[in-house]
Order: sequence, then structure tokens, then C-alpha cells
Amino acid sequence: MLALVPMRTSELVFRSRREVPQDAEAASHKALIRGNYIRRLTSGVYSFLPLGYQVLRNIEHIVEEELDRAGASQLLLPALQPVDIWRATGRIDKMADVLFRVDGKSGSFVLGPTHEEAVIEAMSPDIESYRDLPKLVYQVQTKFRDEPRARFGLMRTREFIMADGYSFDIDRETMRQSYQRFYEAYLAIFARLGLQAEPVEADAGSIGGDVNHEFMVASSIGEDHFARCGDCGYQANIEAARAGAHPPVAVALDVEAVTYSTPNAPGIEIAVKALRDLGAEVEVGTMLKSMLLVDETGARVIALIPGDRTLKVPHGMRLATDAEMAGFAKGYIGPQGHSSEVRVIADPLVLTRPSWASGANKEGHHSVGLRVGVDFEVDSFVDLVVVEDGDPCPRCEGVLSLVRSVEVGHTFQLGLTYSGVLPQARYRSFEGEELPYWMGCYGIGVTRVPAVIAEQYCSSDGDAVVWPVAVAPYVVSIVGVGATKTNEVTAVAAQLHESIGQSGVSVLLEDRNISTGVAMRDLELIGSPLFCIVGARSLAKGVVELRDRIHDQTIEVPVEEIVATIHTFSRDLASERR
Amino acid sequence: MLALVPMRTSELVFRSRREVPQDAEAASHKALIRGNYIRRLTSGVYSFLPLGYQVLRNIEHIVEEELDRAGASQLLLPALQPVDIWRATGRIDKMADVLFRVDGKSGSFVLGPTHEEAVIEAMSPDIESYRDLPKLVYQVQTKFRDEPRARFGLMRTREFIMADGYSFDIDRETMRQSYQRFYEAYLAIFARLGLQAEPVEADAGSIGGDVNHEFMVASSIGEDHFARCGDCGYQANIEAARAGAHPPVAVALDVEAVTYSTPNAPGIEIAVKALRDLGAEVEVGTMLKSMLLVDETGARVIALIPGDRTLKVPHGMRLATDAEMAGFAKGYIGPQGHSSEVRVIADPLVLTRPSWASGANKEGHHSVGLRVGVDFEVDSFVDLVVVEDGDPCPRCEGVLSLVRSVEVGHTFQLGLTYSGVLPQARYRSFEGEELPYWMGCYGIGVTRVPAVIAEQYCSSDGDAVVWPVAVAPYVVSIVGVGATKTNEVTAVAAQLHESIGQSGVSVLLEDRNISTGVAMRDLELIGSPLFCIVGARSLAKGVVELRDRIHDQTIEVPVEEIVATIHTFSRDLASERR
Repeated sequence: MLALVPMRTSELVFRSRREVPQDAEAASHKALIRGNYIRRLTSGVYSFLPLGYQVLRNIEHIVEEELDRAGASQLLLPALQPVDIWRATGRIDKMADVLFRVDGKSGSFVLGPTHEEAVIEAMSPDIESYRDLPKLVYQVQTKFRDEPRARFGLMRTREFIMADGYSFDIDRETMRQSYQRFYEAYLAIFARLGLQAEPVEADAGSIGGDVNHEFMVASSIGEDHFARCGDCGYQANIEAARAGAHPPVAVALDVEAVTYSTPNAPGIEIAVKALRDLGAEVEVGTMLKSMLLVDETGARVIALIPGDRTLKVPHGMRLATDAEMAGFAKGYIGPQGHSSEVRVIADPLVLTRPSWASGANKEGHHSVGLRVGVDFEVDSFVDLVVVEDGDPCPRCEGVLSLVRSVEVGHTFQLGLTYSGVLPQARYRSFEGEELPYWMGCYGIGVTRVPAVIAEQYCSSDGDAVVWPVAVAPYVVSIVGVGATKTNEVTAVAAQLHESIGQSGVSVLLEDRNISTGVAMRDLELIGSPLFCIVGARSLAKGVVELRDRIHDQTIEVPVEEIVATIHTFSRDLASERR
Repeated sequence: MLALVPMRTSELVFRSRREVPQDAEAASHKALIRGNYIRRLTSGVYSFLPLGYQVLRNIEHIVEEELDRAGASQLLLPALQPVDIWRATGRIDKMADVLFRVDGKSGSFVLGPTHEEAVIEAMSPDIESYRDLPKLVYQVQTKFRDEPRARFGLMRTREFIMADGYSFDIDRETMRQSYQRFYEAYLAIFARLGLQAEPVEADAGSIGGDVNHEFMVASSIGEDHFARCGDCGYQANIEAARAGAHPPVAVALDVEAVTYSTPNAPGIEIAVKALRDLGAEVEVGTMLKSMLLVDETGARVIALIPGDRTLKVPHGMRLATDAEMAGFAKGYIGPQGHSSEVRVIADPLVLTRPSWASGANKEGHHSVGLRVGVDFEVDSFVDLVVVEDGDPCPRCEGVLSLVRSVEVGHTFQLGLTYSGVLPQARYRSFEGEELPYWMGCYGIGVTRVPAVIAEQYCSSDGDAVVWPVAVAPYVVSIVGVGATKTNEVTAVAAQLHESIGQSGVSVLLEDRNISTGVAMRDLELIGSPLFCIVGARSLAKGVVELRDRIHDQTIEVPVEEIVATIHTFSRDLASERR
């Protein structure tokens, strides 16, 4: 717990805010604004007021403790990065859509949204030989993204703090050991933060590399989904998840391919209507989506999936442009009769129906009764569909369900993705060879965490957060109550403020000359998990009220036992999580 | 002291670096690079490696403790600031030469080099009435400046961390009280950092406001100077310092103004030569510099100073452009015979000679024997010269001397400079009036401090820093010595590492399999103020050597007393300063 100067509400940067903020989109966002935690400077850019900053510091402190314990050394890399290091990795183009560029009189810079290039520049001069490895480092640092759609307050912003870590190793095996150290530290961090974060297999995106995990917290305002098997525990994010094998069926023997004239009916929905009008028994789920892709060599590939599924474009491929569709009947592409230069790939789901309807490869025409292996050939079967609720688990007999969630962390085994292309990213092996080092990278979205916690810990009325002990700006709020506060009430409240503060627990004293009702509503916005309520009637019995706001329970505690009781309570509350 | 995981040299991000860095300009810069404290990413942009980051954190921790104690609340404002708030104060133009502009798809931003605009945006919604004041806040945050001349490593950079504070008050008197709280906290901070920082009166520059102080540390690599009176303690920076009154003399009665033809002799030096060639007895110090200025209304003003002094342009004025000099004999301007629309101002030094030589207001001509009040009139006498070594003190009979120095902090009484022009910067007074609040702003150059400390605490050979206890990354370095380290030496070193670490002192163990000589040279670069040297011979006597590197003294301490002795030493060392 960080040392805190004991505070009084009169000194806080705080104003009672009854109105619900109009521009806030999520419950957590409303609560953070009403509680004077954050304030919007412009779209996607927030100030952390003292209460919010205290939450942030508590989060950072936990992150730092666990990463230090994992053997990572903290450093600090610049936000202002010369464009040439981004050119060397090619990310100046790959990430162009989110990079803020700065062209000053003193040079051309990128505002770092991530620091793989910068950390290689900083570390390489200290990595000479295998004796200098492994090295694990991290920073807690401000990053920038030219984010087109800033949303949900702190959830997606243009300026944000990340705790980003990097590991450097001699080979794949030691890289995996370093990865494991960060992975376990992340589990420990999220547990201490009171978050049920699930590590799920994920896609590498613009960061690159092989194995990687996202740490996801289930949340109704999440913008991601992950697939989970309730039986075996398989978890993967929506881009990485694979469905298990659906049972294949034999192709139909009693059908024959028939082509219909279906003018002005491109696309699945409209084709179904046109074919049904012509008497064909088709549905969206019995149509085959045939899509033209282009691979890394520029070669064209037909991808086949059932009409009711969403295509997951394989790595290294992309959808063809209109120009690249020359020679193909746009809107009427089918699986059959392509030249041998066009590769046909299909999801295994294409084996689960005896026959399909699809485009006839001829403007304004569709075919029905197309059978795999009879009317069209498939060169290879690959995973091509986004998983859905109810798909089979790829690991067991269970069924996948999709969970709406927020990403709070991400870990990557980068391997040689960066060091393979940067000549300075080398070490000298025991045998004297110059070899690229093996990297991992790791990130926690520090400024996103208060919003994720706030979303999980909204009070029952949904208006304010009750903070978990580990991150609460003040674990205890003390308030003296009664229409006219007696001198004794005021004196005992001040004395408890002093003694609780001295015991190392962060504590806030309500010292303003306002009504009990207003004071209680303000303190609810501030969100301490424990309220200590001092009143004349209870003092007459020698007790004060201690309200555990997380469990909504109030107990009476003898004045002389309050410090010890608060310690017990905060320890117990800190070991729970939602 | 921050909790530290006990470290071993084998885990450090560190490489022995014997060569002196070629691009380093100052001793501190070399020492910081050789010691693996910082690494240049590009001109004026540095990474803090783990050792350097630890120094930075120790500094930040001291700053935070003292500002919290002063009653300021920590917050965090964005670096990315919308241009419109900079337009509202006019600083988008006033500071154009150092502002980094960012034009992204999501908006046009300024990268904040200072946060007056941003803090007013953040705080104003919480300042409604006089009851909400005073408020003192601060942040430790990364700032950006499009600095044309980055220099001396961390001394002047394009990305830097500042601890910047802001105060909000109802009137001038309470603003002064808030100013005093920051001022005293600054003195306490610099004392704890081991720096002799002198508060000197200073010029407000682009920040604005009335009273302000710079906190200056004398340093041979300083780019600033301040004037100091050894007698009375008067101190002011070079822009703000005033010289005391030099005794005026009566004008000469026995001279008459004579004009000489001095073709192709514009400027003081060349005019002196031309006049002397013509037989006139003039020197640089008896020439009058007559310069054309323009005031805020666009009116032209002649400024007069002795030829051997440097002009200090008064606030609100600037040197005339060539176009504005139309009608004046450029290079030959003199004090005499101007139209009544041209105001003539002079430094009081103009009263210290009986007569002067100057331009004759006619191309290619100079006059000698010009007497104030006889041959030319002065509308007003104002302070117009930069002070020099030997000028009289403005406060006592003493003499000023100039001290080369580095600015580590700056405090400003802003008054209504910002709140007067921003409509949201208002509070409601007790009487119900809407009034602008009174502000102060305060800054410490956090990333500059390690360089300033390093410059003060270079070891006698000038190659490495011996850090003061308060900021040392490791207060103690332990090394086992001897050609072949015995098992006992290794075991005692490891055991001391454990027990010193547990006692809360940051400690580093040399655990690499290298020679004692190499180990000692590396540890010197790392710069702990205390070395604990474990050897077989001293262990035989039951002692280890403790070397106080600041005083270059070594004592023998019984093994069982080492923890207690180190505590005493570090307390004593921490209370000294250079």
C-alpha cells in the first residue's frame, strides 16, 4: 500500500455532481465522471483528477511489484521516436492508419503506440553475447494512437498508459520460459486487481509472432468476444478460435446440378429469394459463399464457406479488389469449373451437406445441387469460418459459447519477427556465431483497467463504483452523522482519521459543513469499500458503525477496536474477487 | 526508500563500457552513458535504462513526498492537447517556435510543453465557489519541446519529464500563500536531492505573470547565469537582475558636439576606429549605443546604453525591423534631434559620463561630445542593460558577480494572466460575484536532475558518478575479492546481500565470474556511495571492508555489525550535501 497523506473532503478536488453526464456511454464511464475521477479534455483524451490518479497509481504499483518479482527490470523508453526505426521494420506502413506522425523543425517522429523498435534500439548495445541473456524489461509509459473511434471513456482512447514488457533470449525454449514468467505475473496482477481475467489464445495482428494470449475480462461493454468451452476450458479469442470438426455427410447421389437464370440477384440473401421464386428449395444455410481472395504471391484463390457463416480470411490472404475480379462473375462466383491456376480452398463445414447452391460463374445465374468431389473439387480444407455460439469444441466433445469481453492484457511470443530483420538485434552464441535473439512482448492496458474495474464493481444502483481494497483511492471514508453533530462526534471522527491513517490504511474524513444526506451521497460517488459512521447514539454505546459496502453489511465496532477491525476487513476484502 | 528486489550484476541491464562516448559533451553525460544509465534514441531523445530509471524514480519519490506534504494533490493531464485551448490563450502563436504540432486523422493537437491551458480545463468544473479554493495540484508528466538545439544529454531534450504544479486562489494574498507552500517544498526537495539550489529572481518569459523565481544550481555546464551579491544575498537571473545605481556625473562644460564624416563605419567597433583615425579620443565605453525599438502600440523608441554593455530589451518592446527603420540612418543612429513622436529612453548608466560619442543620424557620420540634457533629451530612464560582473548590487553597497548555473526549478505567481482571458476560469465570491481565480504555476525539470546531480557528484577521476544516498540506484554494492574466491567469501557476500536487502537498503551483489579488477571498475561506473568488500583475509579477522566512496574512506566492520553500520552511514551521508 502506498503512503498517503490523510485527506479531508474539503481538500479534495471534488464537486458534488448529481446530474448524469450526457456524453458518457457506459455505466463505468458515468460513475468515473460523476465521482470526479476523470475529465474529458477532448475526444479520446482524458485527464486523471486526483481520485482517478490515485486508482491509477495503485494499479501501477501492483503491476510493478509483480513484474519486479518476475525478474523484469523497469526502464523508460521515449514516446517520440524517429521515423527511420519504424521504416526499418516496415511498420511505418503496416500501422499507418493508427500512427500519429510529428513533423517538427528538429525532425520527423512517430508517437509510439508500442515499443518493439525502441526497445531493440535501447537494449541491443547491452546484449553482446549469450552471457547477457536472458533479459526481461518493462516500462509503464504513455502511448498514442490515432484512434478513429474513441469509445467508452477510458476503454479506447488516443492517449493511454501501458505497462509493456519485452524479453530477450537465446532460443525458442528460453523464450518460452521468459514468456511463462510474464504470463504468470499477469495472472497474479489481474487477481490482485480483483479481475477475473481469462487468458485466451489470440491472433497476433500487427505485432506479429507465433503463440500469443489475450487476457480477457467478461464485460457487457466489451468490444471483443472470446469462445469458451464449458467442458474442457478451451478458450480463444474470436479471431483465433477454431471450431471442432462437424461430422461430414456423404454427398447426395440423387441430385443433379441445375443452373437457373437469376438476373440482378448477386449476394446470398437476394439469390435465395430469386431461387425460391423459381421453385428451388434453398436456404441461406444451404448456399455456398464463394469468395475470391488473393494470396501473398498475388495468386487468386476461391474460398468456400456455408452461406450462414462469416469468413475468417486466412493469414497472408486478403479479399480481391474489383480490379482483381476481372474474369470472374462478381456476385455470381461459384466453386465449379475454374482454371487450374485458381486454387479452391474450403472450410471443413463444406463437407457437412450433401449438396449446395451457389453462383454459376456466369453473370445473373446460380446453380443448385453442386456436390463436392462431383461438381467441384477442393484443393485443401482449412479453417475459414469465424466460430459461433454452439460450434463444437476443437479439444473435446463440448460446445463453444461466445463471451463478450474486454482485453486487459496481451502476451506474444515474437520469436524472430523483429530480430530477424534488424541487423543490430544479434548476440554472439557460445560457439561464436552471430544470431538473432528471440523476443517476447507483453502489455497491460493500465489506463483501461480503472474502467474495467469500475464496470465490474458498480454499486447496485448502478451510479457509483465501490472500489476493491487494492485500488480504492481511500479504503475507508469516515463521516460524522446527526442533525447537529456533537463535539464528541467531531472529535472521535478526527481521532479515528488520524489513527487509521497512521496504521497505513488510506482514509478520507468528511469534514465539510454539509448535511449528512449530501455527505453520504458524495462519499458514495468517491466509492470507498468501507464507511466508518460516527454518531452520537452509537458513541453513547461506545461503538461506531462500520459498513462493508461490497457485501452491504453494517456492524457495530467498539471505538478502541476499529483500527484492528478495519485491518481484518480490508485483508478479507482484498482476498476476494469478482 | 522504495522497495527494491535485491539485484545481482548478472541480472542487470549493463555492459562494461571502457571507451569514453564520442558524442557526449559534458562529464555528467559521459558518466551516464558509460554507466548504462541512459541511451540516446535520437538527438535530444533518451531512453532511461534500468539504472537510470531507478535514479529517476528516487527523484520522483522525493518530489512527490514533499509536494504531498505541502498539501498538493497529484493528478495527470494529457500530453495530447487540442489546438483550440492553445488558441484561446494565444500561445499557439507565442510559443510556435517550440510547439510540436500533431495533425492526425482524429484531430489537430499540440504536444504539451507546459500545462496551464490543460489544468484550467481539468480544474474549472470543480471550482465553483470561493468554498472550493484554495486548490493545489501537481503532476509528474512527460512533456515535449521542438527544441532546435538539444544539448548536454539530459540537460536540454525534446522529450522530458516535469513535475509541474498549479495553484488556484481567491485573491493575490492567498495566491502568495500557495506560492510560499510550493517555494518551501522546492527548497526541501532540492536539499534532499543533495543539490545547493539557489532561488533567484527571474524573468517570466512565455509563461507570464509577475513575481517568479528560478531555482539555480551552480554548474560549469550551465547555460544560464545568475547575478549574486556576496554581501546581502541578492540573487537574480541574468534576464531579471538589475544593477544598483552607478554614481552619476555632471555633464561636461568644456566640450562641444562635433560631427565627423565616417563613411562605411556602422556599428560601435568600426566607428571607434574611424573616429580615432580622425583624431577623436573615443573608446567603446565612451560611445553611446542608440538602438531603434518598437513598442506594443507600434510607436518607435530610441534606447540608449553605453557602447560596452548589452541591451536588455524592455517587456513589450522589440528591436525594429529593417522596414521599420525607414527614415532612420541605420548604423548611424544617435540620441539627438528626433521628432517628438520618437520617445528616447536611456539606462541610468548614460548619466555616468560627462559626454558621449554616437551616430549623427546621418549616413556615414558620427558625433562626439554629446551631452545629456544639452545635446539630447531623455524622456525616461529605465533599466536597459544586462548586468555584468562587478556591477553594484541593487540592494546594498556590495558588488554583483555572475554565476554559471543550471535551472532545476521555476515558480511563478501568474495572478490573472490566464484566468483573466479564459471565461471558464472563474469562481463565485462570498458576495456572489463571478471573479477570475488567481493562479500560480511551478515546475521541476525531473529528467534534468540526474544530469545536474551527476555533474556535481562526479568521482575524482571524472569518469563516473558517486550517487548521493537519496537517489543512488543501489546504496550498497557488495563484491567478493581475491584471485580465487573461497566458498566462505561467496557465502558471506550472498548472506550480506540478503540481510542488507531485507533491512530496506537497496543493494547490488557482484555475482559474475570475472576478475576483481573488472568487477571493481564496473561497480565504479554503477556508482553506489558504499562498497562492501568481502575478502578471505579480512574474514579471517571476522570483518569486511566498508568503503565510503563520497569521502574516500575505508573502515573495517565486524560482519555481524555491517547492517547497522550501513544504516548509520547512509543516514549520515543522506544529511550532507554538496
